[in-house]
Amino acid sequence: MNRCRMVFSGSGGQGVITAAIILAEAAVLYEDLMAVQSQSYGPEARGGATRTDVIIWDSEIHFPKANEPNVLVCLTQEAYNKFYAIIRPGGLLITDIRYVKIERKVDARQIELPMYQKVMEKIGKPIVFNICMLGVVVGLTQVIKSESILKALKDRIPPSFLEINTQALELGVAMGQEPRL
Amino acid sequence: MNRCRMVFSGSGGQGVITAAIILAEAAVLYEDLMAVQSQSYGPEARGGATRTDVIIWDSEIHFPKANEPNVLVCLTQEAYNKFYAIIRPGGLLITDIRYVKIERKVDARQIELPMYQKVMEKIGKPIVFNICMLGVVVGLTQVIKSESILKALKDRIPPSFLEINTQALELGVAMGQEPRL
Repeated sequence: MNRCRMVFSGSGGQGVITAAIILAEAAVLYEDLMAVQSQSYGPEARGGATRTDVIIWDSEIHFPKANEPNVLVCLTQEAYNKFYAIIRPGGLLITDIRYVKIERKVDARQIELPMYQKVMEKIGKPIVFNICMLGVVVGLTQVIKSESILKALKDRIPPSFLEINTQALELGVAMGQEPRL
Repeated sequence: MNRCRMVFSGSGGQGVITAAIILAEAAVLYEDLMAVQSQSYGPEARGGATRTDVIIWDSEIHFPKANEPNVLVCLTQEAYNKFYAIIRPGGLLITDIRYVKIERKVDARQIELPMYQKVMEKIGKPIVFNICMLGVVVGLTQVIKSESILKALKDRIPPSFLEINTQALELGVAMGQEPRL
């Protein structure tokens, strides 16, 4: 899948914007794709749910917002309540079990994962929760290679943080690729 | 001026994207305005100049990219060479004296400032160069209040970094507000 409209949502401190920027940079710098990454803030932004859009495409992109995303990630209940309905029919809705209780039925594949819990168990640093989420997205969709994410991470973060970021990415990829019924 | 289309450009490590996000958040959270902030990456992104767009508006925004920005900031020669021509006639073109040699004539107010040099002299930490730049933009345009930027900074950065960020912001605002011929 080399064309993907994605929305990552959560609360301010969860790093969804950073994750989106890293994904967009990785796609462009290491996979010869195009990407647009944006935040749109209106009155609803004051409510507390952060939303960031990433579009990855194999040709020029003329639409900056991922209306009806193929992939929607919700990392808080508030983000889920606000955004669940925008998922494209047949799309992929990813939530974190710790933060989101699935209450609505949507015409999408709903995947609940213990991302936060696994990050805390295996790495113990909540700061890489967003990178684990990115691993899950890449593991599930194969929109780009996880190696490209790793290269983009290397460009951006200090060497001392690379190890835990790599672990978080691999943890996420493994969760995303786990066989499901 | 409560309506402004801005483009910040520079190299990857200069923090222009972070500055743009902070500005957009400040406008929305503390001034009741709307904002869109985006990065668009195409083949040209591989060249090395980072570009980020911020639009601040007093009503809903239907255009995500700041084509013909009112305010264009260029923090590297490469960014200047690539983007100088997109400035809106009558707009404001801000460059850093250390990094950019002005070589072209544009129909805009050109303001060259020693932002990097002042940051190093007064604070000694290059990491807050982007916040000084943000201060300059706010000081020159009054698009939002610098107090709103400060509030947004407080939301995002650890208390131990707040002092140097506040200094950098104030330094920038003072440079932006200096009388000019």
